[in-house]
Amino acid sequence: MASPPDLAHIHHVELMSTAPEASLRFFVDILGMELEAQEESSAYLRGWGDYGRYSLKLTESSQTGLGHVALRAWNTDALERVARAIESTGRGQGWTDGDHGHGPAYRFTDPDGHLFEVLYEADRYDAPPELAPSLKNQPQRYTGRGASVKRLDHVNLLAADVRSVREFATDVLGYRLYERVELDDGSEAGAWMSLSIMAHELIYTRDHYGAGGRLHHLAFWVDTREECLRAADLFLDNDVYIEAAPSKHAIAQGFFLYAYEPSGNRIEVTTGGRLVYDPDEPPVVWTQAERAKGQAWGVKTIDAFHTYGTPPVE
Amino acid sequence: MASPPDLAHIHHVELMSTAPEASLRFFVDILGMELEAQEESSAYLRGWGDYGRYSLKLTESSQTGLGHVALRAWNTDALERVARAIESTGRGQGWTDGDHGHGPAYRFTDPDGHLFEVLYEADRYDAPPELAPSLKNQPQRYTGRGASVKRLDHVNLLAADVRSVREFATDVLGYRLYERVELDDGSEAGAWMSLSIMAHELIYTRDHYGAGGRLHHLAFWVDTREECLRAADLFLDNDVYIEAAPSKHAIAQGFFLYAYEPSGNRIEVTTGGRLVYDPDEPPVVWTQAERAKGQAWGVKTIDAFHTYGTPPVE
Amino acid sequence: MASPPDLAHIHHVELMSTAPEASLRFFVDILGMELEAQEESSAYLRGWGDYGRYSLKLTESSQTGLGHVALRAWNTDALERVARAIESTGRGQGWTDGDHGHGPAYRFTDPDGHLFEVLYEADRYDAPPELAPSLKNQPQRYTGRGASVKRLDHVNLLAADVRSVREFATDVLGYRLYERVELDDGSEAGAWMSLSIMAHELIYTRDHYGAGGRLHHLAFWVDTREECLRAADLFLDNDVYIEAAPSKHAIAQGFFLYAYEPSGNRIEVTTGGRLVYDPDEPPVVWTQAERAKGQAWGVKTIDAFHTYGTPPVE
Amino acid sequence: MASPPDLAHIHHVELMSTAPEASLRFFVDILGMELEAQEESSAYLRGWGDYGRYSLKLTESSQTGLGHVALRAWNTDALERVARAIESTGRGQGWTDGDHGHGPAYRFTDPDGHLFEVLYEADRYDAPPELAPSLKNQPQRYTGRGASVKRLDHVNLLAADVRSVREFATDVLGYRLYERVELDDGSEAGAWMSLSIMAHELIYTRDHYGAGGRLHHLAFWVDTREECLRAADLFLDNDVYIEAAPSKHAIAQGFFLYAYEPSGNRIEVTTGGRLVYDPDEPPVVWTQAERAKGQAWGVKTIDAFHTYGTPPVE
Repeated sequence: MASPPDLAHIHHVELMSTAPEASLRFFVDILGMELEAQEESSAYLRGWGDYGRYSLKLTESSQTGLGHVALRAWNTDALERVARAIESTGRGQGWTDGDHGHGPAYRFTDPDGHLFEVLYEADRYDAPPELAPSLKNQPQRYTGRGASVKRLDHVNLLAADVRSVREFATDVLGYRLYERVELDDGSEAGAWMSLSIMAHELIYTRDHYGAGGRLHHLAFWVDTREECLRAADLFLDNDVYIEAAPSKHAIAQGFFLYAYEPSGNRIEVTTGGRLVYDPDEPPVVWTQAERAKGQAWGVKTIDAFHTYGTPPVE
Repeated sequence: MASPPDLAHIHHVELMSTAPEASLRFFVDILGMELEAQEESSAYLRGWGDYGRYSLKLTESSQTGLGHVALRAWNTDALERVARAIESTGRGQGWTDGDHGHGPAYRFTDPDGHLFEVLYEADRYDAPPELAPSLKNQPQRYTGRGASVKRLDHVNLLAADVRSVREFATDVLGYRLYERVELDDGSEAGAWMSLSIMAHELIYTRDHYGAGGRLHHLAFWVDTREECLRAADLFLDNDVYIEAAPSKHAIAQGFFLYAYEPSGNRIEVTTGGRLVYDPDEPPVVWTQAERAKGQAWGVKTIDAFHTYGTPPVE
Repeated sequence: MASPPDLAHIHHVELMSTAPEASLRFFVDILGMELEAQEESSAYLRGWGDYGRYSLKLTESSQTGLGHVALRAWNTDALERVARAIESTGRGQGWTDGDHGHGPAYRFTDPDGHLFEVLYEADRYDAPPELAPSLKNQPQRYTGRGASVKRLDHVNLLAADVRSVREFATDVLGYRLYERVELDDGSEAGAWMSLSIMAHELIYTRDHYGAGGRLHHLAFWVDTREECLRAADLFLDNDVYIEAAPSKHAIAQGFFLYAYEPSGNRIEVTTGGRLVYDPDEPPVVWTQAERAKGQAWGVKTIDAFHTYGTPPVE
Repeated sequence: MASPPDLAHIHHVELMSTAPEASLRFFVDILGMELEAQEESSAYLRGWGDYGRYSLKLTESSQTGLGHVALRAWNTDALERVARAIESTGRGQGWTDGDHGHGPAYRFTDPDGHLFEVLYEADRYDAPPELAPSLKNQPQRYTGRGASVKRLDHVNLLAADVRSVREFATDVLGYRLYERVELDDGSEAGAWMSLSIMAHELIYTRDHYGAGGRLHHLAFWVDTREECLRAADLFLDNDVYIEAAPSKHAIAQGFFLYAYEPSGNRIEVTTGGRLVYDPDEPPVVWTQAERAKGQAWGVKTIDAFHTYGTPPVE
C-alpha cells in the first residue's frame, strides 16, 4: 500500500561543463532557456515553464558530468523527515545555507556516489517586464527561441550497482518504482522512478564501466512530439550531434531525442510518457529478451547510448 | 505548506443517459472506448490507457447528468481518514459493499448535492487476448477506433455556490486548488482543483440556473493536440454536435474540444494543460475582466457553454 | 478538359506598410523571415523554404494594402503567351526592366484594379555561410526564430465584382477554379483558384465596401498544424492581435491563424488544405446556407473578417 | 526551360498478393482504406481522400510485387501525345478497353520491365450514403479507421539500370527529375521524379540483385506526422512488421514509416516532403558520402531496406 512521498520533485540539477561558454550558448540559443543569473563560474538557467528561478545550474569544471541533484520536499516537516532518514543511512553530509534561489539544503550521496541535496525553501520566479507572460498561470512568456524547452523533466544517472541505488531511492527518498530491467543473470540493468504520476523523474541505468557518480543524461520537457521533431531540425542545422533521432521509448513510452551539448554531456528533449494513477501500480519488469527488441517501434539505439556517460571513462 | 492528499484520483464516473443505446454507440464507436462489462441497465466502459477495469459507468435513466463520482484513496488508512472526515461534516451516507470492479465505498454528497463515493480496493484491468497490448507497460492494446480516448481525465460539475463546494473539496477531500475565478462582486464563478500535478481533475463552475447536482462535462484524455483535431473531424463526419471547436483554454491551458453525446451530456476531448510541481503553488485568481477576454487565443465560447448542463433546466 | 497553365506560381508580393520599422520587426522577429536585402523604402524578405531570393517586398507607404502580385511563368514562351493574352484585354501596362532578384516583368491590373506583374527570369537564393542548410535540398537553414514561416503561400484579394476578377484569372491568366461561393441572389462572394495541386494560391472574396484594389490577407506556410498553434502562442505573448484563432476552414480545408501585422494588414499562418489531382476537378460551389454554418468545425469568424481589408475604408 | 507535363498523376497501382485475404484485411482494417469493389481475383481500394473510385487494385497472384502503374493524362490530346511518344520507343503494347472505373488505356513497359498504362477517362468517386462526407470538397467521409490513409501518394520501383528508367520517365513520360543519387563510380543509385510540385511521385532505386520489374514500395499519404506516429502504434499492436520506424528522409524530406503488408510487399505511410515551385529547379545530386550519413536526423536504415523488394529474389 503506497502513499504519497515527502519529496515533491527535482528542483534543479547542476551540470558541469568543460566548455562553459559553448555550453551556455547551447542551452540559451539552441535549447531556448533563459539565463536567470550568472555568478562566478556558474550560470542559472530556466525553461519558460519552470516555476522556480532556475532548474539548471551550469558550472565550469575540469570535467563534465553531474554536479548535484536537488530535490524539493513538500514542506518543512517532510524535509526534516527525509533528512533524518538519510542521516540514519550514514550517507549524509550535513546542511548547507542554501544557494541562489533556495534555502537550507541537506547534502548527501547516493550509494554510487552522486551528490544530492534536499531542500524546501525556494523562490518562485518573478519575470522581469520583458519576459512577463500574457497568461497569469504561466511563469514566463513563451519566447519560441530554439527548441524552447519548457522545464527540466528528469535525470538519468549511471550506477555500478543499480539495485543499491534503486533501493536507496525508494526506501530512503520515497521514490516510487514504476519500471525496471532485470537481466537473465538476475542483475538489474535499470530502474525508472518517480515522485509523481509522471512515468519517470529519476532513472538509474547500469554503468557499463562500473565507474561511480556518472551521468547518463538530463532531460528537458516540451509539450508535443512535434516540438521534438522540430528540435531535431534545429540540432541538424546547428551542428549539434544527434545521438538518437526522435522516436518512442518502450520503457515509460516517452518520446525522445538525444544529443550532446558542446562539452559532451548527453541531453534529451522529451515529451509524452504514460501517467501512473494507480496507487498500487506494480513495477513493470522488463527481461533481457524484451529489451533486445529495441525501442517501442523497433529502433535499436547505438552502442554509445548504452556505454557513454559523463565524465567519460578513459 | 501543502502535503500530498489521501485521495489519489477519480476512479470512475457514472453518467446517466436517456438514450442508452445511442450513448453506448457514441462512447464505443466515436470516442473509441471498450465495453468492459454490461449489467442490467449499466455499461462499464474504459479507455485503452485506463489501468482499472473501467472509468465510465453509463446508466440508463429518466434524466441525464451525473450518477456519481468515485474517488480512489492511496490506501486503506487514507480511505478511513477521508471517510471519517466526511462523516464529521454530516454529508456522509454510509458504506456500500462496492460495485463491479471495486470494493467497499463510502457514499456522500457535496454541498451542491452531487453524489460521490470514496473507495480503495479496485481491480486492475486484465486484457483478454484480443486486446492484449504489445508493450507490457500499457493496460490494453491501442485499437485506434474513433477518437481513441486514453482515459477519463477530469469532471466539471456545476454548483449554485462555488465557494462552498470548493471549500468542501479542499478542506475535507484534500484537493489542491490551482485556479479560480472571482467576479467583481466577490462571488466565485469557478474553481479548478487536483489531487496530482495535473492542472485540474475536479472542476466546479457556477450553475447559471442555481440548480443543484448538475453536470457541466466529463473530459477524456488523448495524448496529443492532433488527436483533438482528429476527433473534431470524426465528430463532423458522424453528426456529433460540436459545441466548441478545438482551441486552448486560458485557465489551466488545456486544449479542448466540446461536444454533446446523444442524450445531451457534454463531453470534452482534452490534452495538455500545465503541470503543477510547486508544493506551495499559489492559486491563480482570474478576474471578471480577464475572463471576458475569452480563451487563450481569444476564442469566445458560445453562451450555452456557460449556461447548459445536465440534466437541463426546464 | 483542363491542361496545365503557363504560369507556375506567385513569385512574390509587395505589401505596403505605414509603419515600416514595426512591420519589419514583425516579419523578422515574429514570423521569423530573413531580411534578404534592403533598398531605400523597401525590404526584401524570405521564408526559410523560399527558393527565390524573396517572396515578400515590404514597402513604406502612406497607406496599407497591396503593392503588387508577381506571377512567374514556366518559361519564356509561356511568359510571352500570357503577356499577349493580357495585352489583348486592354489591361496591360507594358514591360518593366525588372526589380531586385528578377528580370523583365509585364505589368497589368485585374478588373478590380489590383496591380500584377508576370515574369520569368528570377534568381535562385544562394544562402550566405551563416544561413547555409545542412540538407542540400533546402535553400536555407531552419533558424526556428518566431513562427518560422517556410514560404509565401497564397494571396487573398478583395473585389467589388468577384465574377469579373475570377473570370480574368481563369480565362486570361490560366488559373484553375477549385471552389467558389454563390449567394442566393446569384452573385459570387468568393473564388479559390490555383496554378498547382494546392487548394488555393489566389483567392478573391467580395469587398464589403465595394472599394477597389484592396487586400484581404497574405498567407505564409508552415508545414504542420502544431506550428500554427505555436504561432498563436507567440502572437499572444508578443501582443500581436489575433483576429481568428487556429481552426480549420471548410473551403479548401486549410488550417488557419489570422492576425494583423503592426500597420494593419491581415496576415495568415496556414498549413494543410486539400490537394487537387483530378485534371477535371469540378469547382465546388458553396451556397449561402452552407457558408452560414461557419468554418469546418463550426467556428464563426468575427464580422471584421468579412469586412476589414487594407487599405481600410473610411 | 521546363513546362508542365502531359500527365497529371498516378491514377492507381495494381499490387499482387500471395495472401489476398490477409492483404485485404491489412489494407482495410490497418491502413483504413475502403473496399470500393471486388471482382474475381481483384479488390479495388481507396483512401478517404482519393477523388477517383480507387487508387489500389489488389490482385491475387502466385507472386508478390507490382501488377501495373496507371498514369492519368490531363486530357485526350495529352493522352494521345504520350501514347505516340511511347509507341515511338518501341515499348508500347497497345490499347486496352479499360478496367473498373476507367476508360481506354495504352499499355507499355519501362526499360526495367515494369508494366505501366496511361489513360484519361476515369470516374469520380460518388460516395454511398453511409460514406457521404460533411464537407462537399471531400470525396468521402473520414472514418478514422486504422491508419486512415488519405490517398495513394507515390510508387518506388527498383531497376537494374536507374539511368535508363529515369531517362525514359523524364524524356518520354514528361516527369520532372527533382533529386538523384550518383555513386562514386558514376552510376546512378536512385531518381526521385514528379509530375507536380510534390517532391516525388515516381521513384526508381537500384535493384540490389539486378532483377527486373520489381517493387520497392507503395506509399500512402496522411496529412500529419502525428498520423505517421499513430500508424506506428497501430502496426505495433497489430503485429505488422515495422521495417523502419517513423523518421525523416534526407532526400525529398518526406516523413516515413515502412512496414510489410501480409504477403510481403513493402508499404510506406508518408507525409510532408518539400514542394517544388521553381520551374527551373535544378536536380539535387546526392553523393555516396552524403548518402552514408543516413536519413535527415542520422537514422541508418537497415540493410534490407536497400536490398529487399517484391517479388523477392531467391
